[in-house]
Amino acid sequence: MNATRKHILDQIKVQGDLVRQLKAAKESKEKIENEVARLLALKAELGDDAAPTNQKFTLKTPKGTRDYAPQQMTLRQSVLDRIVQVFKRHGGEAIDTPVFELKEVLTGKYGEDSKLIYDLKDQGGEILSMRYDLTVPLARYLAMNKISSIKRYHIAKVYRRDNPAMTRGRYREFYQCDFDIAGLYDPMLADAECVKIVSEVLDTLDIGDYVIKLNHRQLLDGMFEACGVPASSFRAICSAVDKLDKSPWQDVRKEMVDEKGLDGDTADKIGQYVRLSGGAELVEQLLADEKLNAVPNAVKGLEGMQLLLKYCALFNLEQRISFDLSLARGLDYYTGVIYEGVLKGEQDQAASPAKTTQNGESSESESSGTVGSVAGGGRYDNLVGMFDPRGKAVPCVGVSIGVERIFSVLEARAAANKTKLRTNDVEVFVASAHKGLHEQRLRVLNQLWAAGIKAEHSLKLNPKLLAQLQHCEEHQIPLAIVLGDDELSQGLVKLREVTTRKESNVPLTDLSAEIRRRLPL
Amino acid sequence: MNATRKHILDQIKVQGDLVRQLKAAKESKEKIENEVARLLALKAELGDDAAPTNQKFTLKTPKGTRDYAPQQMTLRQSVLDRIVQVFKRHGGEAIDTPVFELKEVLTGKYGEDSKLIYDLKDQGGEILSMRYDLTVPLARYLAMNKISSIKRYHIAKVYRRDNPAMTRGRYREFYQCDFDIAGLYDPMLADAECVKIVSEVLDTLDIGDYVIKLNHRQLLDGMFEACGVPASSFRAICSAVDKLDKSPWQDVRKEMVDEKGLDGDTADKIGQYVRLSGGAELVEQLLADEKLNAVPNAVKGLEGMQLLLKYCALFNLEQRISFDLSLARGLDYYTGVIYEGVLKGEQDQAASPAKTTQNGESSESESSGTVGSVAGGGRYDNLVGMFDPRGKAVPCVGVSIGVERIFSVLEARAAANKTKLRTNDVEVFVASAHKGLHEQRLRVLNQLWAAGIKAEHSLKLNPKLLAQLQHCEEHQIPLAIVLGDDELSQGLVKLREVTTRKESNVPLTDLSAEIRRRLPL
Repeated sequence: MNATRKHILDQIKVQGDLVRQLKAAKESKEKIENEVARLLALKAELGDDAAPTNQKFTLKTPKGTRDYAPQQMTLRQSVLDRIVQVFKRHGGEAIDTPVFELKEVLTGKYGEDSKLIYDLKDQGGEILSMRYDLTVPLARYLAMNKISSIKRYHIAKVYRRDNPAMTRGRYREFYQCDFDIAGLYDPMLADAECVKIVSEVLDTLDIGDYVIKLNHRQLLDGMFEACGVPASSFRAICSAVDKLDKSPWQDVRKEMVDEKGLDGDTADKIGQYVRLSGGAELVEQLLADEKLNAVPNAVKGLEGMQLLLKYCALFNLEQRISFDLSLARGLDYYTGVIYEGVLKGEQDQAASPAKTTQNGESSESESSGTVGSVAGGGRYDNLVGMFDPRGKAVPCVGVSIGVERIFSVLEARAAANKTKLRTNDVEVFVASAHKGLHEQRLRVLNQLWAAGIKAEHSLKLNPKLLAQLQHCEEHQIPLAIVLGDDELSQGLVKLREVTTRKESNVPLTDLSAEIRRRLPL
Repeated sequence: MNATRKHILDQIKVQGDLVRQLKAAKESKEKIENEVARLLALKAELGDDAAPTNQKFTLKTPKGTRDYAPQQMTLRQSVLDRIVQVFKRHGGEAIDTPVFELKEVLTGKYGEDSKLIYDLKDQGGEILSMRYDLTVPLARYLAMNKISSIKRYHIAKVYRRDNPAMTRGRYREFYQCDFDIAGLYDPMLADAECVKIVSEVLDTLDIGDYVIKLNHRQLLDGMFEACGVPASSFRAICSAVDKLDKSPWQDVRKEMVDEKGLDGDTADKIGQYVRLSGGAELVEQLLADEKLNAVPNAVKGLEGMQLLLKYCALFNLEQRISFDLSLARGLDYYTGVIYEGVLKGEQDQAASPAKTTQNGESSESESSGTVGSVAGGGRYDNLVGMFDPRGKAVPCVGVSIGVERIFSVLEARAAANKTKLRTNDVEVFVASAHKGLHEQRLRVLNQLWAAGIKAEHSLKLNPKLLAQLQHCEEHQIPLAIVLGDDELSQGLVKLREVTTRKESNVPLTDLSAEIRRRLPL
C-alpha cells in the first residue's frame, strides 16, 4: 500500500468516527450530512471507483433550474443571435451587471412579488440578493454612472423563488432578454420603436401568429378613478385586473370585492371597461366617454395611446397590435405605456369555455405575463430616480423577450418534426484505415487547424475504421479524411464525402485548399 | 401595528444602536458601512415605499463585482467570439448549468478553498451554493446524465468570496471559459489537444509572448515521496509548491518547515527539483535520477510527460511549452497532467530581484493561477466518479481560459493606444434638415429596417441638424440620410458619408439598395 493511500485510510477512519459521534449525539441533519459528504469525498479520493460509497443525495439541479444540453444550447444560441440582430438593427449596445445586487437595490421595487427574491446567506460583509429582473439593475447602473441616455440590451439569467410549472417553460432560473431606451425624448417615439422591436423579434423567430396588446397605466388609473376606486387601492385593483389573463372576470370581480374591499357597483363599472379592445376607433370612443373624459389622467393616457397607435401605423403594425383595456402587467414600476406580445395559437388552444373572449388567454403568469405571452414591457419613468441621491429621473421604456417560452415552443416544434440540430461544427474527421497511424493523424490535424478548418479525430491510438465512419454519420460531419500507408507513401490521403460515401485521393500538400473548395457541403 | 412590523421596528432599534456604537468607537469604515447597509435593509423591509426617501446606501455593485459598460462588452464579446472559434475548431459543443448547485455537490471538492463558496440563505427548501468553477458542475452533469464522452465548452460566471485585488483583474464574480474533453481515450491524446487549444487561443488573441508550463501530479507526488515527504503531507506540500509563482523559494521553504512540519533536509531536496524546467532532455535526466526512478509514481509521471512532449512536438508547440517542476496548481481534484499559460511580458515586468528565475513570475494567485497566468487546467480522472452512485469514473482533462485577465490586458492596451471601439453597429442615421419631418423619418426607418439595415434617429420631434450630424461623428456611424422637403417633393433624399461629408441625392425607392452598395464603408 502506498503512503498516500495509507494516509487517506487514516483520515477516513477519523472522519467515520466523527460521523458516528454526531449521529449518536443526534446532531442536526445538515451537520451530519456535511460530515458524511466529507467522508464520502475522502473515500472517493482512494479512487476505488468500484467501492459503492458515493454520495447519497439525489443527483439533480436545484428545484426550478435545469441544465442546457448541447442540442438545447444550439437552438438557444440561434434564437439569441437572431434577437440580438434585431436589437443591433435598432442601435442597441450591450451591458452586463452582476448576478447579485446589494439587497437594498431590489427592496421596494417589485410590490407583492418581493417575497420571491433569492437572498444570499449572510457570511459577513454585504447583504446580497440575486437579481429578479434586468430592469432594476439597469436603473441602478444608470443612476450610479449618471448616464442620461442609452439604448441597451442585456441577455442574462434572473432568479425568482416561484413555484414553477416547468413543463410549461417556467423556471426559477431563466433567461431574460431585454432592450430598453433610456433618455428624455419626445412622447411615444421610443415607445413605438419598442413595440416595433417586439414585432421584428417575433417575425424573425417565425414562431407563429401573434398579437401585441397595448395599454397605458395612466389610462388604467384614470379609469379606476372614473369608476370610483379610492386612489389608495389603485395598485391593488390594477394587480387584480392583471389576473384577467388567467382567470375569468367573475373570479377577478370576486377578488376586487371580497379581498380588496371594492363595492360591487364599482367593480362592475371596471368590468365594462376591461372587456374592451380595439384600435384607434376605440380611443375615439373612450375620449368621448363622459365618465373618462372628466378625469385628466384618463385623457392623458388616451392621448398617449392615440399618438402611439399613429406611430405604430407608420411602422405598418396595425395588423399586429390591439389596444386592450384588460392588459395591466404585474410590476409596480410602470408609469405609462405597457404592452405584451401573445402567441395566438397558444391563446386559442388554452382558452376554456368558462373564460370570456377578451381574457381567455392561456394560464399562468410568467416572466413576461402569461404562458402564451412571449414578450412584455412598458414605460417606467421613475425607477432611475429612486436610485439617484437627488432623485434625478431618467425616463425609460423597454421590452423583455420571453425567451424561455420561445425556446420551449421551438423545442417542441423541433421534436415534432424530428429535426436533429448539429451540436458541433466539425467539418472534417481525420480517420485511420489501419493501426499505427495516430502520429500521422496529429500531423494532418495540425495542418487543418492551422488553416482554420474544424477537425477532430477519435483520440484513440487504433480505432476501428467502421466506428470512425459511423461517428461521422451520427454527428453529420460532412467530410472524412482516411489515412492509410499506401496513399501516404505517395503523399496522398483519401477524402470522403460522408453522405455520398464518394472518395477521392488528394495530395497532402493541397489538402486544406481542397477541403475549403468542398465546404460548405 | 402588525407583529411583523413590530418585530422589524425592534430590529431597527437594535441595529441603529449598533451603528451608533461602531461610530463612537471609530471602527473601520467598511465595518460601519456594512452595518449601515443592514440598517437600511431593515428600514426598507418596512415597505414605506411612498416615503420620499431615496436610498441612503452607497450606490455600488457588491464587493468584488462590476458592471460591464458597452465599451467593455464590445471588447469582451470579440474576445469570447474568437475563443469560441478555437473551441469549435476542436469539435467543442456548448452546455450551460445553473448558477447555483445543491450545496452537497460542491462540498469536498475544493480543499482549502471551500471557505470561499457563496451560500444562499436558507429560505425553506433546498440548501444551495453558487458555483465556484465550471468543472464540478460539468462532473455533476456527466454523472447525472450518464454521459461517458463529450467535448464541451462552457462560458459563464463563477463566484468566490475571495479578497480580490480588482485593479489586477481579480474579482468575486468573474467569467470562466472552459473546454474539457471527457471520455476514456488513449494516454495524452486529449491532454495534448488541450495544450494545443491553449496555444491557439493565446495566438488568436494576440496578447503577447507566452509560455505554457507543464507538469504532472503523479510526478509531483513521486518526487515528494522520493524526497521523504510523509504521504499525509503530500497535498499540503503541493499547495506550498503552488505558491512558488508568487513567493521566492526561501518563503516557500519556510512554510514547509515551520508550518507544515517538514524537516529542512527534505525541503531542500524538494528545492533542488522544483528549480528545474526544460523539455524532453529534462525528462530523460529525471528518468535517470536514482532517487526518482525508484518511485513508481515518479516514473509513471515522467513517462506521461515524455508522451505529452512528443505529441506537443507534433503540434509544433516546442517553442511554446516548458516542463516545469515548480508548477503545482491549487485545486485538489487534479490527478495527472497540469498546465498553465503565462504571459512572458507580465512575468518579466513583475519579477523582483529577490526571486529566482524559475519562480519569478508575477504576484497573486487567481482563477487560473497567477496574475500573469491566463490559462490553466489539467487532468481530473476521479471527479465524475465522486458523483456517480456506483462510482463509475469518466476520465476528464480540460482547460480554463483566464478571460478576465485577458480582458484587463486588452483594455489596458486599448486605453494606451487610445482605441475607441464602436459600441453599436448602426449603419445609417436618419436625420431631419428642418422641423416637421418626424413622420417621414419613421417611414424611412421602417423601410430600412425591413431591408435589414441598422438604422436609428434622434427620437426627438425637431432635433437640430448639427446635433444629429455630431451624433453620427461621435458614434462613428458611416452614413446619414438627411431628409428635407425640397428633396422629398422630388422623391429624393440626401445620402451623406459621415467621414468625408460627401453628399448625393438618392431616390427613396432605391435607398436601401444604394446603402447596401455603400456598406461596409
